[in-house]
Amino acid sequence: MKATDHLYAVLLAGGKGTRFWPLSRSEHPKQLLKLFSDKTLLEETYDRITPLVPEDRIYIATVEQLAARIRTTSFHRLAEENIILEPIPRNTAPCIAVAAKKILKKDPDAIIAVLPSDHFVKDTNTFLEVMEAAAHYAAKGRIVTLGLQPITPETGYGYIRFGDFIGDTESVNQKYRARAIQAFVEKPDVQTAKSYLEDTRYLWNSGIFVFRADTMLEQVKEHLPDLATCVNELENINPKDSKAIKKCWEAMPSISIDYGVMEKAQGLLVIPSSFGWSDVGTWNALGAFPNDASDNFTHGDVIAIDTANSVLYCDEGLLVTLGMENVVVVSTNRVVMVCPTDRTQEVRRIIDELKARNKGEYS
Amino acid sequence: MKATDHLYAVLLAGGKGTRFWPLSRSEHPKQLLKLFSDKTLLEETYDRITPLVPEDRIYIATVEQLAARIRTTSFHRLAEENIILEPIPRNTAPCIAVAAKKILKKDPDAIIAVLPSDHFVKDTNTFLEVMEAAAHYAAKGRIVTLGLQPITPETGYGYIRFGDFIGDTESVNQKYRARAIQAFVEKPDVQTAKSYLEDTRYLWNSGIFVFRADTMLEQVKEHLPDLATCVNELENINPKDSKAIKKCWEAMPSISIDYGVMEKAQGLLVIPSSFGWSDVGTWNALGAFPNDASDNFTHGDVIAIDTANSVLYCDEGLLVTLGMENVVVVSTNRVVMVCPTDRTQEVRRIIDELKARNKGEYS
Repeated sequence: MKATDHLYAVLLAGGKGTRFWPLSRSEHPKQLLKLFSDKTLLEETYDRITPLVPEDRIYIATVEQLAARIRTTSFHRLAEENIILEPIPRNTAPCIAVAAKKILKKDPDAIIAVLPSDHFVKDTNTFLEVMEAAAHYAAKGRIVTLGLQPITPETGYGYIRFGDFIGDTESVNQKYRARAIQAFVEKPDVQTAKSYLEDTRYLWNSGIFVFRADTMLEQVKEHLPDLATCVNELENINPKDSKAIKKCWEAMPSISIDYGVMEKAQGLLVIPSSFGWSDVGTWNALGAFPNDASDNFTHGDVIAIDTANSVLYCDEGLLVTLGMENVVVVSTNRVVMVCPTDRTQEVRRIIDELKARNKGEYS
Repeated sequence: MKATDHLYAVLLAGGKGTRFWPLSRSEHPKQLLKLFSDKTLLEETYDRITPLVPEDRIYIATVEQLAARIRTTSFHRLAEENIILEPIPRNTAPCIAVAAKKILKKDPDAIIAVLPSDHFVKDTNTFLEVMEAAAHYAAKGRIVTLGLQPITPETGYGYIRFGDFIGDTESVNQKYRARAIQAFVEKPDVQTAKSYLEDTRYLWNSGIFVFRADTMLEQVKEHLPDLATCVNELENINPKDSKAIKKCWEAMPSISIDYGVMEKAQGLLVIPSSFGWSDVGTWNALGAFPNDASDNFTHGDVIAIDTANSVLYCDEGLLVTLGMENVVVVSTNRVVMVCPTDRTQEVRRIIDELKARNKGEYS
């Protein structure tokens, strides 16, 4: 039996995300943006995993207000069964626990890959190979995280410090041997991030992890017993009784799987690898994936004259830059935003300013 | 008799001008742009002179393709009589000569102020006082130019070197005594422009000048005899015979009044003054007239956060800048243009690029 024969995928697609303003709005969270192709990041995430996981084993977890949009815009064929609906946002731990419970009922040997749906992956082949290795370790009852070798001193990422090689390696691609996780490290300051670049024991935490459904539910029971109780109760509610379902979700603790489970669980593994990954946290992140000869990332009808190291995004009309460097220009939704590449994390200030000026319609 | 009792104005509104792309297009030349208020530069020019010249003595000279637009957009009440139509573009000398001939027929003592219709004037009162003084000198048979004390080392302007005070001063405001023109100076390089700032004998050539109609026609006869012949012929053509009129215009030399007459005529005067003038030659010129606390020029729905010394023009949706300096951002006509303030003179390169890329619809 191959581990991947029981591999399921849960795509986390409930997030809001305002860091891609003016493209992202409350109705257009990042996972529904088309940043790299004519597909949304969610669609790209879905397509990426299909060589390994058949469609009936792919689940999309999302909030009620997005579910209809996701279905009508691109996932017409998705079965009702394959949507994990969060009646109210409760962060990631509850929806992962609910998904694990649901999938376990279907397949007692189920292995689940949790995939954020708003990330970028350049090298799909390597990603799939790593996934396969992770499923192998997960089948043995381990929780396995994917860690990326840092390329830049990112202060927006969480890091993982790894230890020795661990676990059974027999049937695993030797390139992707797992290591013990020594610690999850909070987002560092610039100095610390630079030191992590030199110290080879640190990896970017991709937020992608793989586990057996029953393993995860045991961990939830141990570290988040209230959540485990709610998840069991949910089982017994009539699926049509949306009021009772909502009440049950309201009782769940709002907590991330990272804080709630991962940082407390024992024996976690990480597979270090490199597959051109980014969490695409801000506009600036797109600059890491230039697509012209002057190291610009351009999207849409853009003419960049004497322009370098810039992110130029246009989905309305035409954008022309002349003699610019290290700048982000976004033209979309009747809004133009211009700022230096190293200040894209301040986009939130703009949204605050919009509200202060009664221009909330643009936020 | 006051000189201004016979003062007429001819507004030159035939120019094309691409330096304000993407706002200006072939159909939207600079004089028809609303840069400083909700009025076009042409309307502002018109309004500026009305305290001194009644409407029936104001003429607008323009090409055929613009005449209808000028009339329907803002000059509904303008009499047919007050449009000097150029069937084909022939630069400024022919249309000024034709205007002078037409006005002279109406008033043998006519004095004409020629006003470019795409300039900015901040201090209208001073402008009108200088005009009055200029009309006084013009009444005595002089051609009088308005010269501006330079404020910056402009390389885009022509300059005038002046000599001694000259002419009758009895009835003239002593602040605006005329001086002899020693030379018209071509657009200088930066070094020369800087030296002109220190040498007090140099003025910016505003392109605004005042003369008796008969004086100008004598000068045209002397320096551009072919043009004088054409202008006389035009007199005898039936105003409804548009074919014959066009043929007559085709025979006129295409030459500016500056090269054709001003630089050859004798006894020219200049009145040095300061009334916050700019020829608004490029987007950057708007930066000289900031309207917020951070020395930005903004127009339209603009939010400038930590942004200084920039020109921010938006007439569609919203424009937001964060952390920018010395930048021009224009959002209009489904086009966004971004460039440093010191490169706005390269806008022509963009238009070439558009044509090369088959995007002529944006040019």
